[in-house]
Amino acid sequence: MSNILRRGRLENTLDTDIMQFTSSMKWDSWIFDADIMVDFAHTLMLAKQNIIDKKDAADILKGLTIIRDNGIDSLDHSYEDIHIALESRLIDIVGEETGGRMHSGRSRNDEVATCIRLTLREELLSLLDELYSLRVTLYNIAANNIETLMPGFTHLQHAQPTTFAHHLIAHLDSFGRDIARIKETYARVNLSPLGSAAFASTGFDINRKFTCELLGFDDIIENSMDGVSSRDFLIESASVIVNIMINLSRIAEELVIWSSEEFSFIELDDQYASTSSIMPQKKNPDSAELLRGKTGIVVGSLMGLITTCKALPLSYNRDLQEATPHVWQTISTIRSSVRIMDGMLKTMYINTDLMALKSTIGFTTATELADTIVRNTGIPFRTAHQIIGIIACNNSNPSLSDIDKISISVLNIKLSDKGLTEKLVQEALNPITNIKKRNVIGGPAFDTIRHSLNNREEILIKEKETIYKLKMKSKNALQELLNIVENYINRV
Amino acid sequence: MSNILRRGRLENTLDTDIMQFTSSMKWDSWIFDADIMVDFAHTLMLAKQNIIDKKDAADILKGLTIIRDNGIDSLDHSYEDIHIALESRLIDIVGEETGGRMHSGRSRNDEVATCIRLTLREELLSLLDELYSLRVTLYNIAANNIETLMPGFTHLQHAQPTTFAHHLIAHLDSFGRDIARIKETYARVNLSPLGSAAFASTGFDINRKFTCELLGFDDIIENSMDGVSSRDFLIESASVIVNIMINLSRIAEELVIWSSEEFSFIELDDQYASTSSIMPQKKNPDSAELLRGKTGIVVGSLMGLITTCKALPLSYNRDLQEATPHVWQTISTIRSSVRIMDGMLKTMYINTDLMALKSTIGFTTATELADTIVRNTGIPFRTAHQIIGIIACNNSNPSLSDIDKISISVLNIKLSDKGLTEKLVQEALNPITNIKKRNVIGGPAFDTIRHSLNNREEILIKEKETIYKLKMKSKNALQELLNIVENYINRV
Amino acid sequence: MSNILRRGRLENTLDTDIMQFTSSMKWDSWIFDADIMVDFAHTLMLAKQNIIDKKDAADILKGLTIIRDNGIDSLDHSYEDIHIALESRLIDIVGEETGGRMHSGRSRNDEVATCIRLTLREELLSLLDELYSLRVTLYNIAANNIETLMPGFTHLQHAQPTTFAHHLIAHLDSFGRDIARIKETYARVNLSPLGSAAFASTGFDINRKFTCELLGFDDIIENSMDGVSSRDFLIESASVIVNIMINLSRIAEELVIWSSEEFSFIELDDQYASTSSIMPQKKNPDSAELLRGKTGIVVGSLMGLITTCKALPLSYNRDLQEATPHVWQTISTIRSSVRIMDGMLKTMYINTDLMALKSTIGFTTATELADTIVRNTGIPFRTAHQIIGIIACNNSNPSLSDIDKISISVLNIKLSDKGLTEKLVQEALNPITNIKKRNVIGGPAFDTIRHSLNNREEILIKEKETIYKLKMKSKNALQELLNIVENYINRV
Amino acid sequence: MSNILRRGRLENTLDTDIMQFTSSMKWDSWIFDADIMVDFAHTLMLAKQNIIDKKDAADILKGLTIIRDNGIDSLDHSYEDIHIALESRLIDIVGEETGGRMHSGRSRNDEVATCIRLTLREELLSLLDELYSLRVTLYNIAANNIETLMPGFTHLQHAQPTTFAHHLIAHLDSFGRDIARIKETYARVNLSPLGSAAFASTGFDINRKFTCELLGFDDIIENSMDGVSSRDFLIESASVIVNIMINLSRIAEELVIWSSEEFSFIELDDQYASTSSIMPQKKNPDSAELLRGKTGIVVGSLMGLITTCKALPLSYNRDLQEATPHVWQTISTIRSSVRIMDGMLKTMYINTDLMALKSTIGFTTATELADTIVRNTGIPFRTAHQIIGIIACNNSNPSLSDIDKISISVLNIKLSDKGLTEKLVQEALNPITNIKKRNVIGGPAFDTIRHSLNNREEILIKEKETIYKLKMKSKNALQELLNIVENYINRV
Repeated sequence: MSNILRRGRLENTLDTDIMQFTSSMKWDSWIFDADIMVDFAHTLMLAKQNIIDKKDAADILKGLTIIRDNGIDSLDHSYEDIHIALESRLIDIVGEETGGRMHSGRSRNDEVATCIRLTLREELLSLLDELYSLRVTLYNIAANNIETLMPGFTHLQHAQPTTFAHHLIAHLDSFGRDIARIKETYARVNLSPLGSAAFASTGFDINRKFTCELLGFDDIIENSMDGVSSRDFLIESASVIVNIMINLSRIAEELVIWSSEEFSFIELDDQYASTSSIMPQKKNPDSAELLRGKTGIVVGSLMGLITTCKALPLSYNRDLQEATPHVWQTISTIRSSVRIMDGMLKTMYINTDLMALKSTIGFTTATELADTIVRNTGIPFRTAHQIIGIIACNNSNPSLSDIDKISISVLNIKLSDKGLTEKLVQEALNPITNIKKRNVIGGPAFDTIRHSLNNREEILIKEKETIYKLKMKSKNALQELLNIVENYINRV
Repeated sequence: MSNILRRGRLENTLDTDIMQFTSSMKWDSWIFDADIMVDFAHTLMLAKQNIIDKKDAADILKGLTIIRDNGIDSLDHSYEDIHIALESRLIDIVGEETGGRMHSGRSRNDEVATCIRLTLREELLSLLDELYSLRVTLYNIAANNIETLMPGFTHLQHAQPTTFAHHLIAHLDSFGRDIARIKETYARVNLSPLGSAAFASTGFDINRKFTCELLGFDDIIENSMDGVSSRDFLIESASVIVNIMINLSRIAEELVIWSSEEFSFIELDDQYASTSSIMPQKKNPDSAELLRGKTGIVVGSLMGLITTCKALPLSYNRDLQEATPHVWQTISTIRSSVRIMDGMLKTMYINTDLMALKSTIGFTTATELADTIVRNTGIPFRTAHQIIGIIACNNSNPSLSDIDKISISVLNIKLSDKGLTEKLVQEALNPITNIKKRNVIGGPAFDTIRHSLNNREEILIKEKETIYKLKMKSKNALQELLNIVENYINRV
Repeated sequence: MSNILRRGRLENTLDTDIMQFTSSMKWDSWIFDADIMVDFAHTLMLAKQNIIDKKDAADILKGLTIIRDNGIDSLDHSYEDIHIALESRLIDIVGEETGGRMHSGRSRNDEVATCIRLTLREELLSLLDELYSLRVTLYNIAANNIETLMPGFTHLQHAQPTTFAHHLIAHLDSFGRDIARIKETYARVNLSPLGSAAFASTGFDINRKFTCELLGFDDIIENSMDGVSSRDFLIESASVIVNIMINLSRIAEELVIWSSEEFSFIELDDQYASTSSIMPQKKNPDSAELLRGKTGIVVGSLMGLITTCKALPLSYNRDLQEATPHVWQTISTIRSSVRIMDGMLKTMYINTDLMALKSTIGFTTATELADTIVRNTGIPFRTAHQIIGIIACNNSNPSLSDIDKISISVLNIKLSDKGLTEKLVQEALNPITNIKKRNVIGGPAFDTIRHSLNNREEILIKEKETIYKLKMKSKNALQELLNIVENYINRV
Repeated sequence: MSNILRRGRLENTLDTDIMQFTSSMKWDSWIFDADIMVDFAHTLMLAKQNIIDKKDAADILKGLTIIRDNGIDSLDHSYEDIHIALESRLIDIVGEETGGRMHSGRSRNDEVATCIRLTLREELLSLLDELYSLRVTLYNIAANNIETLMPGFTHLQHAQPTTFAHHLIAHLDSFGRDIARIKETYARVNLSPLGSAAFASTGFDINRKFTCELLGFDDIIENSMDGVSSRDFLIESASVIVNIMINLSRIAEELVIWSSEEFSFIELDDQYASTSSIMPQKKNPDSAELLRGKTGIVVGSLMGLITTCKALPLSYNRDLQEATPHVWQTISTIRSSVRIMDGMLKTMYINTDLMALKSTIGFTTATELADTIVRNTGIPFRTAHQIIGIIACNNSNPSLSDIDKISISVLNIKLSDKGLTEKLVQEALNPITNIKKRNVIGGPAFDTIRHSLNNREEILIKEKETIYKLKMKSKNALQELLNIVENYINRV
């Protein structure tokens, strides 16, 4: 059969090079399932509105069901996109007199926008699941390491003693914000542009609310020009994903550094490591490195997407075909990265003894010592900071008398005369008593962390429920659509 | 006075080159006001918690008030950042015995994060105002052009007749989503990290909720490591701004194209145009071009920000100093761009007669003609598409008999025998009756657009209220803080 | 057979998810051919240096030839990369006692770097060919349009009359610089890192110069740590490609604008256009739009690549596996884009009559009129600019007396009294005489353009030769290597 | 005086918001000096060609000299750019009858392109100097550390013993390629577009070669449309700079990691470090972190520049005003970053004893041990790799008998029976003998490194000369131009 699109207006055949350049088939496997569902919903609507008759509708639905069962590989890949390949295949199966009616009152412009949104919706739901699982893992490791001491870092320098739980909750909370962002983005993704047609809607008496409902969308995207030409939901999705990836890259960097001989804080499970083709002793933290490296895919895709969208006049331009693949690259990368991070964390060996041992090396207790001085002698913080700074140049375990020596030189007084005792000094220098003093909300004191984790447990339970509800709404709608189609075919 | 920070631990003086490389003073003017407010709140809290006494607190507040009145230019710009420049100046004014107490229980790490969030909050609120104003302008122009015909474009080709109002509502709705995104981002920006100290909180008995409330934050950001080291709120803000800029760039492109001799759909007001230094006849749409060009600033800044944040281990790293300026560049560019777009649209001349004249050129009515055939003769859409496609090759104003001629060659029937009449053909070819048929939700039919605009009027009214409430909450909190400080100084 | 790499140091089996995350097989088809050549060269060198014996070498070469003939699909895709899949397959064929010797004195780190450089070299050579062809096309169209008038644009506004040839030479010259950049980059790509081994070279007495020569590299990249860990040649290649793509995107934008109803300067050949699934009259310049949209792929890939390379310590890190695919995406996109642009330009219809007609619309002759006044009356340019600027507000075809009227009001003199004649005015207003006056080097005067094109013809001839020489050097080296291998197998 | 540009064609006054949005004055300080030189050259050319008379030329040159002496601050900053501010100021000084003649035969379009190229040329020359200095520093440190042992890293894991010199030469060579790239870019930057006028050249009989020579350009950029609208030289410059910055970021990452408590390989000089406002013991490698963070500026600027340039039709568009600042940001960042890196490296303390101590930890000698087995027993490398891999699981210092034990289990033979001796094993395990064996070109053996350094010394000497020549050519041309101007003023 000749090309159903080009046979009217344009010369019919295309050179292979041009075909490959212009075709979107390579990426359209992402939307094949969605396209069938959209065709189902559109056909049911056309029949309901009496734009096509019931018999034609049933035949179209039957044809679509066959195509769905045969899968995307049964389509002719020499078409410029899946929509026209699919419509052509349908016409092959049921004839143009019937199949030629399916595209009434719509255009590929609204069709593809609907397919992208439907597919992206499902991907975001899966991503929510995966992020939730990662958060549970972080929660569990934190819960098991409330009293695991470690040196807290700033500038990759030992700064103050803290706990592994305290460190992990920072990551746990980051991913909580990522989940919140996805949910908000989801609400703008899950809108139906179907019925916008080419951009100008249509003179057919279509029913946009009906297809919206059949496909499980939360609402329609109203203005038909907006419906086909806006891609802010893609930029937004890709941006949200970049934030997740940056968060992951930070942990990945920590895992790589902590796996080094010098740090040896952790050891990844063999599954996540590789050896060398030449150096037989090597065990490399490859999965963490790859995850860090894949940040480039996600960042590059966002930038590519933005570049493509810049300065396009309304309404649909073919450039937009190049926008979507960036998002599919992004989504597949982020989903696997979250899963791999989850697995690496779950299975890694944590060298808690060494971390504890190092928690005070580098005079990490200096801040609490200065604070102790301030609280017990009443000298200003800035002055205490100076005194300890001087001590730090050559002593990281000062006694009361060491401190007195310096305080005399700076202030002409002995701090022991102002209330500082050896006991207080030792409490500041001991990492456990030191940490226990930092019981401010959000601090590392053991009980404070226990309280934080209790709160997060509640949050996780609620999160699980809301994700479940979103998933069920989508799943039920799509299942119901399939049921309607099956009944329709059987009934007519 | 010697450098209050470096005098303890490090050599004291810095080479100018190093100073310029490491100093953030150039960008810190953005946070000067915020830093004073943060100092006010922190000092009041220290006194309330009895960490410093009331007299010291009052003296510190007095000193800070002097610094605030004198402005940022009164600070010594040879310090590495505004926080230490400000603390040094305070110590100059009130002495170290008093001023040296202000920094108790905090670090520059939580201080700067709080300042950035406070400043960004105010900028986002102003941006909301400006976007709202742009939306009102788009609404007004749309309301005045409900029946202004124009050719609707896809691929920059005439596609179907539409109205200017229909076109403008697409942009209006885009900016509505931008406002929604800003509001959601705002909720994650307006959180207080104050009290996180360096990353490990503090052993002082500080009160994080109290400073949070004084500064008008909605809540605290709990985990102290998260508080100082997460910058996802910056990436998120910059991403949201990129989406606005892309939307603006699309209108800018349209304004440039529409200003061309060939299009002549609009003419910008002289204020927004420039002439040539050599070509005296020129009137160029410079503001639109510059706005389009400034997309580069916003996109580049996001990319720069992401690059900086990639793969940083916890907690604070000095790299983060380089993250923030990208956001300030972004925010100042977007704010002026929104204002300029608002002004250009408000003042431009719209050549409505020419737009109407062109609305049918290029056989834009072909789709409705095909649809009319389908609806009245019952042939499949795909077949009607083929027939009109053949006609379109050399006739853009076919009569019934022209159509019959082609339908005979394709289908062996005359469509006039199947119910097509000359009247129906003419209704499809006339842009006004053509548009009126497209009364689907979101379509361009005049009454449909009137209905759309009524809905948007209501949305705009609510939007104004919610923006006003957010602004008042912030404004009142900061005014109340200033009142408390003034009373405190006078009372003690 | 168990995994030849992991059997020593690590647990043996990998979960599918982890396999997919860590494997580079998806992209390694790009380097399959190169990898075989590298294996050939390395094996020949090992034998020449008596590191392995001739019989083993011959058997290895035979095994490799079989693998080469069977193609990449015959390899086991469950390995983490092509190198180890290929070595495993070799060992399957010739046994470990022989095949296990091939990897002596090298590592995958130098192997992959060599493969990437070899493949990229061939791709750059093909790209040079394609760019050369595009330049010839631009030259030919220019040569056919030396006297084709058109309005020259600045700010998308009619500015001064020019010729289509003048316009096209600007693009022609841009691509000339792109070719120069590729050649320079090529010189840094075509260097052999083979022999660097993991990063530390090797204790085997290998011969780096010999493999370098066998593979047709211009030289070795000396320092072995540099050899395996530097990817500046990728960033450089991707950057050079971005510049080409930006140049292409500028023409693409022109083609889209010129194809609009309003401009109608050109019409693309049907091959490069598409129609609409709904609007039967549409002929859209899709290939130009897609090319413009694909700019995003190239820009995004560069950014992804840079993001991945940022802040990696020496020497090899697994992140680098994620660097290369960005370059393959870039190279395939640019190559097809150059070809499509070539085809679009070659086949498009140019509406020369309309372009000529529009060349003076918008008072494009104003500059030359002002210049004529300056040259013939001696008033300053800035004053003449003002006079013509005033006239331009309501007259774009002034007579001498119109000019006098304004000059009296501005200068109190008649320019006709100072030497301006009606003939001079008319020469300025006529586009042909106007253009002929602009015979400065690089200007649009017909003879000047003829001279420019003569120069460019010579340049193109030389360019063709140098590209041919580069290609032959590579082709001959690789053919010679295959001959040596064949002889070696037959002889031993 | 009224606005000399707008008084003819457009309304005269601009709102402040619009002024700030459209003005480039903020960034034009970068090109002020260049603009004066361009004005000098253009004026001398106009006089030489008798387009203006000698007296006017002398007066213009005098006026320009005054403006130059007063500096940019003496200009009225309410103009849209420096060119028109400068021309206005000139007219203020010498009157329109004279000053109004300077702009004859040119436009701001070619003027600004010339100014950017002239300024960028000087910046690139300075950058060459700075990179050269950095290379000398790396050379010197390498020369002092030829026998300084350290663990070589892959995947941040100890891999094989190497030397600090070997490591540093990798960086040294990277910057050598950066210098080569800059020189090639320089050749495309140092071209004169002057005389292109608005894009269409001019009807005045100007002399482009003469201004080209006066300004020290190597050649003209011929096609006048290309001259004003191409910005590939900016993208190229920014790309080259990105490569330098990525190279710097890699060293910066190493410095940060090496400064950690766990590594302690180096300690930065106090000048390049900072302490904490709260933690008195801290010494942070801030300059290295900031340099790493500033990568974002350079990468973001390139992305911004590319975004701005995408899809602009010919010829000049006002968007280009937004292109240039990205390059100035880039160039100032890279220049200071190179200087800071140079300083950090020159002054850092290198903990050579510790590095040597760690050089064998992690069984880094395993590869050489496997190679030794292959060379002395004749078993295949892949089998030796397996044997050592098994040993590495629990022994990193095996004796001959340990090896025999495993070889029996794997191969059923004792390797001591095949020629392996305890002496050979110990030579492989000793880092010095181990390194000495790796004397392949580019390897770490001490004598190999000495040879490498000798070569690099020669390269550096030549590099110094070529940089000096480029600098002198530019400097002499500009000095000569100033002399001509001075003589001209005095003579006329």
